[in-house]
Amino acid sequence: MVTVNEAADIIFANLHKPQKEAISIEEAVNRVLAESIFADRAFPPFDRVSMDGIAIRFSAWEDGARAFKIAFTQAAGEVQKKLESSEQCAEVMTGAMLPENTDTVIRYEDLQIEDGVAKITVDTLETGQNVHRQGIDCKSGEKLLEPGIQLSPAEIALLASVGKSTVDVYQMPKTAVISSGDELVAIDQTPGPQQIRRSNTYAIAAAMHPLQWKAQQFHFKDDQKELETSLKKVLQEHDVLILSGGVSKGKFDFIPEVFKTLGVKKLFHQVSQRPGKPFWFGVSPEGKTVFALPGNPVSTYMCFYRYIKPWIYKSMGVDFPKFNISLATDYFFKPPLTYFLQVAAKVENGKWVAYPEPGGGSGDFVNLKNVTGFVELPADRSEFKSGDVFSYYPFRYII
Amino acid sequence: MVTVNEAADIIFANLHKPQKEAISIEEAVNRVLAESIFADRAFPPFDRVSMDGIAIRFSAWEDGARAFKIAFTQAAGEVQKKLESSEQCAEVMTGAMLPENTDTVIRYEDLQIEDGVAKITVDTLETGQNVHRQGIDCKSGEKLLEPGIQLSPAEIALLASVGKSTVDVYQMPKTAVISSGDELVAIDQTPGPQQIRRSNTYAIAAAMHPLQWKAQQFHFKDDQKELETSLKKVLQEHDVLILSGGVSKGKFDFIPEVFKTLGVKKLFHQVSQRPGKPFWFGVSPEGKTVFALPGNPVSTYMCFYRYIKPWIYKSMGVDFPKFNISLATDYFFKPPLTYFLQVAAKVENGKWVAYPEPGGGSGDFVNLKNVTGFVELPADRSEFKSGDVFSYYPFRYII
Repeated sequence: MVTVNEAADIIFANLHKPQKEAISIEEAVNRVLAESIFADRAFPPFDRVSMDGIAIRFSAWEDGARAFKIAFTQAAGEVQKKLESSEQCAEVMTGAMLPENTDTVIRYEDLQIEDGVAKITVDTLETGQNVHRQGIDCKSGEKLLEPGIQLSPAEIALLASVGKSTVDVYQMPKTAVISSGDELVAIDQTPGPQQIRRSNTYAIAAAMHPLQWKAQQFHFKDDQKELETSLKKVLQEHDVLILSGGVSKGKFDFIPEVFKTLGVKKLFHQVSQRPGKPFWFGVSPEGKTVFALPGNPVSTYMCFYRYIKPWIYKSMGVDFPKFNISLATDYFFKPPLTYFLQVAAKVENGKWVAYPEPGGGSGDFVNLKNVTGFVELPADRSEFKSGDVFSYYPFRYII
Repeated sequence: MVTVNEAADIIFANLHKPQKEAISIEEAVNRVLAESIFADRAFPPFDRVSMDGIAIRFSAWEDGARAFKIAFTQAAGEVQKKLESSEQCAEVMTGAMLPENTDTVIRYEDLQIEDGVAKITVDTLETGQNVHRQGIDCKSGEKLLEPGIQLSPAEIALLASVGKSTVDVYQMPKTAVISSGDELVAIDQTPGPQQIRRSNTYAIAAAMHPLQWKAQQFHFKDDQKELETSLKKVLQEHDVLILSGGVSKGKFDFIPEVFKTLGVKKLFHQVSQRPGKPFWFGVSPEGKTVFALPGNPVSTYMCFYRYIKPWIYKSMGVDFPKFNISLATDYFFKPPLTYFLQVAAKVENGKWVAYPEPGGGSGDFVNLKNVTGFVELPADRSEFKSGDVFSYYPFRYII
């Protein structure tokens, strides 16, 4: 038996080594960048008008000029024009190049325009106002993004701006999500009185969705010979196996033995945690990774968020965000195990506060609908006080 | 000009009325539920063994029995068996039906088994221990989920368990995301010195991704006649139009006029906010919704998160979560406008703390890569103190 921290250390010491793949930026949101991105030109690439109005030479204003004849209009997208006389001005549009021989933009709100002459109606101007200076946001050739960044819509916009219609991201590993347990029937079947429907593989596949990490789903019977044959094939065809069920102490819990036969090395079996104690983890000589989670739905679910999700992020070099949260009420948990306490998190005055919703144990997945994630209560204490801060693992979208 | 709150009120008073569609639960994560979900049976559906070990009658233990001959094994998925004598026990597996005439499960850790006899090695038992009682999580027929819930992996598991392989969710509106601006060229083009590449429509499409809300992207020239023809067609073929550009005071900002011609009623133009002041909003007589955002990338981006994202959630009846956060440092903003201050949010000791990263204005989208969202600083103040709490709009995934 290992502790939660030991289990996490072992898992994170055995990261997946992802390949790269080039994909369209229209498919790339939430994927993890696998190349450095450089500015192909300065941003802005030219002195850019940032307000609709007129452009003048500031020196003319300093010399006392307040009314300017409009010489021409400089629209966005037009080749740069030139103001020949500082007694004149150019009418300029947001996004346009600042005309040559001008340096300052006065917005329409501060003008009166009549008969082709713009009169300035304010008393103060600043030189260079309403001009977004070439290169002020970044220089040409500057590194904008590094590998290991999860691409948000902001980075997608950046990629578009520097001309990257396709981008290198890390390939997600070929993954199988496998349930076992002879009590389980397919969703569309009517279960007998002794049966229930399969749900774990659906939950895991859904939890993988934010990363666009796709999995093939399997279900195998609790039969050692059959498991050996089936898992051998699945192991050949996938990089990562996530199993649920078949790892506790029951007579038909063949999974650890089968993986031993298949040459997958056990790195731990059993973690001093509740739920999810029977968790088994191993790697094959070819570097394939096997997460064999307990079959109780809440155990499966929490082990995914506590171990597998950080593992895949870390495998791609993402600085995985750690959250913490205050307990809203006292909580008591006696067994000398790390306890994953289900909570409903609320934001109260800038504080994240966790309301315990422990539910009825690892089989009670109905309770999960009331919770937003879980907090990790350490094994070396049994009393947890309102206001104490603990690690928090959310599993609902909040953005 | 309206205030931010007035703009939001007007937008939220004009919600989209979504249709329903039935989709596979494998596609349903993050979609919004459009039907009530009921338990088709109790959960658990039977008295369920929750530990591997033996099942006995508690009365036998009370009568002094400590060793029990194993009469049979009850595996998960097997039809319920019956213990004929209370001097005997059944070997039982997690997930199995509790055998008839037993009520209490002792786990292997608390047993010594030899020659087909299980000896209990602990001094105390509780009646009913390690049994997950039928119906304790929910009753048959109980309502489990209501319309308006965004489906997390937990709800996907619930749907699977009650036999819903397909589920009714709200259909996302047919949406067009449109940029305009003659300075804009396609990503794969090399921009001239006066041009930049299009990025706004990519950013918006990416921001829509978490909801599996898909959009068709368009780009139109700053030509009034052409805009009229093109927008008329787009309006016919879509429910929602999200535009960027063409709404400020420039000579080629034709969008408001074109929508007037097309019969789309303006509900506001200009919001007292920075960035994004020129924001225009209208609805057509057929109930189509037009968000015409300013073209500066940061303005477009923030208006999406401040207005459009809550609007689509509210349209589907989702109780849209509101966040707030403490400022990490003092901040000063003088103009009498609501200011969307870019920040990098961090979680510190259970508190969400926002570090200002204001960037170089609404054209400086390079800055967005350093930030996680923005806080809304109200218009009626100019000094904002470290520790003050404000609404927070995140735009990066954190789960």
